Amino acid sequence: MRLKERTDVETALRLFFSQLKLRVRCEEVSLTEALNRVLAQDVIANRDVPPFDRAAMDGYAVRAEDTFGASLENPILLEVVGDVEIGEKPEVGVQKGQAVRISTGAVMPKGSNAVVMIEYTSRVGGSVEIYRAVTPGENVSLRGEDVKSGEMILRRGTILQPQDIGMLAALGTTSVKVYAKPVVAVMSTGNELIEVGDYEEGKTVDSNRYALIAALKELGCEVTDMGICRDDEAELEKTLKNALNKADMVIASGATSVGMKDILPVVVEELGKIVVHGVAIKPGMPTALAIAEGKPVVMLPGFPVATLVAFYTFVPPIVSRMMGIEVIKRKWETVKAIAGRRIPSSSGMRTFTRVILKESEDGYIAEPIRTSGSGILSSLVKAHGLVIVPEGKEGIEEGEEVEVLLVRPLTRCLYA
Amino acid sequence: MRLKERTDVETALRLFFSQLKLRVRCEEVSLTEALNRVLAQDVIANRDVPPFDRAAMDGYAVRAEDTFGASLENPILLEVVGDVEIGEKPEVGVQKGQAVRISTGAVMPKGSNAVVMIEYTSRVGGSVEIYRAVTPGENVSLRGEDVKSGEMILRRGTILQPQDIGMLAALGTTSVKVYAKPVVAVMSTGNELIEVGDYEEGKTVDSNRYALIAALKELGCEVTDMGICRDDEAELEKTLKNALNKADMVIASGATSVGMKDILPVVVEELGKIVVHGVAIKPGMPTALAIAEGKPVVMLPGFPVATLVAFYTFVPPIVSRMMGIEVIKRKWETVKAIAGRRIPSSSGMRTFTRVILKESEDGYIAEPIRTSGSGILSSLVKAHGLVIVPEGKEGIEEGEEVEVLLVRPLTRCLYA
Repeated sequence: MRLKERTDVETALRLFFSQLKLRVRCEEVSLTEALNRVLAQDVIANRDVPPFDRAAMDGYAVRAEDTFGASLENPILLEVVGDVEIGEKPEVGVQKGQAVRISTGAVMPKGSNAVVMIEYTSRVGGSVEIYRAVTPGENVSLRGEDVKSGEMILRRGTILQPQDIGMLAALGTTSVKVYAKPVVAVMSTGNELIEVGDYEEGKTVDSNRYALIAALKELGCEVTDMGICRDDEAELEKTLKNALNKADMVIASGATSVGMKDILPVVVEELGKIVVHGVAIKPGMPTALAIAEGKPVVMLPGFPVATLVAFYTFVPPIVSRMMGIEVIKRKWETVKAIAGRRIPSSSGMRTFTRVILKESEDGYIAEPIRTSGSGILSSLVKAHGLVIVPEGKEGIEEGEEVEVLLVRPLTRCLYA
Repeated sequence: MRLKERTDVETALRLFFSQLKLRVRCEEVSLTEALNRVLAQDVIANRDVPPFDRAAMDGYAVRAEDTFGASLENPILLEVVGDVEIGEKPEVGVQKGQAVRISTGAVMPKGSNAVVMIEYTSRVGGSVEIYRAVTPGENVSLRGEDVKSGEMILRRGTILQPQDIGMLAALGTTSVKVYAKPVVAVMSTGNELIEVGDYEEGKTVDSNRYALIAALKELGCEVTDMGICRDDEAELEKTLKNALNKADMVIASGATSVGMKDILPVVVEELGKIVVHGVAIKPGMPTALAIAEGKPVVMLPGFPVATLVAFYTFVPPIVSRMMGIEVIKRKWETVKAIAGRRIPSSSGMRTFTRVILKESEDGYIAEPIRTSGSGILSSLVKAHGLVIVPEGKEGIEEGEEVEVLLVRPLTRCLYA
């Protein structure tokens, strides 16, 4: 066994990861189970979203060229040949001199290329007076405006957020390939330990196991509870082998300290290798990181604050790596960035602008995503975060410092 | 129905909450189900933790007064009358001139009041030479040092964290009373909508419902999926009544805009009251907040980015309130504070100091918790966050600015 050292956190993790060859597993999950799972595939759009040209306003679908020159003084009269509601398939087309009454979101009839807003029209029997000219494409959401078939929409290593799940649904995807949740076995060691609810003089409730199981669930792991193990070499070896058999990682608490009874490290050395024993954190110094049967074995000190501090220092990066990623920032964290372009806002409104963060020598740059509106879900899927312009502020200038509220964790995919 | 306005976010929520009389429900959950649930009771310790005086070091349990004057040159000889291991009930006591061999964590034998560390002793047959004097209480963890019976340990309104669950286990608690998870019904409205996996010309996949269900799960809600509802007054009324019957809150998307087909607000007005219609956010302006049968009904615009922006603006505060709390800061957020006292650290070690945040006129003050060590779990339960002193820094001076990493969400209990 290595002598007790005080390896600093970064060195400890680097050493550990350099010797750990993880085998990540994948599984297919349905969309309703996909929240917070890590995507193990790239997602390429297999269709256009929206799948057809649609009206962006209530009004009349027209051939734009038929409206040129229209004004309040000189309205242009068009024949109304039909009506199309949202969700309907248009039954008529628009020919020269014709118009179709259309609702927001409805399919544009064949031959039409613009919508005149209802406010600039007046129905006169079977015809409609047009008071304002429109240009081709005006008030129309084009097919594929949100997503184009063949476009890369979500990359491997993305932790799936509600907006991503909405996007996958819009693409007609009912299931996705994700990295399997790591299965983590938790064991407590110590002759003094009893289960919660039990009482015996001289014994202590094993509270660490409850805290660790909760902390692992919080990280998105499946937990296998191995219970309490006596300080007995044969029992420890049996439990550890059993745990390695059932799980992708083993976490043992109370198994490593300066006491004479700490025989788990000895048992672990027989089955594998202790990479780090003793880290430069306080509390938590006696922590040991080992590899047995190719799987991480984390030995945490038994004192409860030390247990949890060491857990949060070492386990989350290991768990992320088991899901193929490194997490750089958490969702809902705020990061400072420089506006890469002017960000306009609406006076009196709290404006939420979607931005992509880019790393530069001077820190992050927040690039606002150009989008034609709130119907473009892909803009939220591509965005790392939001810049929230308060009600009283008239936009943000290029180069101004902004706070970006992350709408997803920032991750680095280890297998991309 | 009120005319469409642009109420700002804070006014909208204040108005809404002033008219909303929520009935919170409670339930008893087992410790293994308690993570992230909101405590609906105060927790008072019903026992001392630890439940007995115990050795904090390996060595000899002695009467401190017997060691006074001991030194390397003038060792004091004590008779060894027994041995006590961790988890054992001591079978002998310590009388004048006696000592008992003891392991870290073991119960202090009757009559002993200090432990001489093994390093300062030498075994000589049935006796032990003591080379260093100890004071009463030295190297002993006193009964109740972590928690005293009768002490308030966790307050109503706490969102239970792994450390809290460990503490509850240590107190022998196997279940706790928490606020019930709000049951939220989600419906989408629109004649154009189809289910994911279906295809029909002119129709659009209802992606919002998938995104909203995921977002609600992320907030800790139970979700009742009411599916897609046609823009038909009778169908909307039936679905809404059904939803109000099944759930504590209803969220409808695509039901409120400037289009002529938006009849949900009309139906809602018949069953209850629209408190706010039109908010000063962009996107998301047409959002409406209503109360029907005493329950919140949130009508979100149908465009997906607007749906989600409005959701995250209005729903999380409503959900928190349904669980009896207001969330001020998220777990793992970093807040700036002023060190209320000097925070010592160990050279070359990354030191994690538990602190309580206090509000002052100049912002937060971080008060380090006085604790005798990493065995005191209650210190982590009382702490709002950690000040992490890096390896190269020699402590933090009183008055210095620090960053506090929150180890729990900061909440305000609405019923305390």
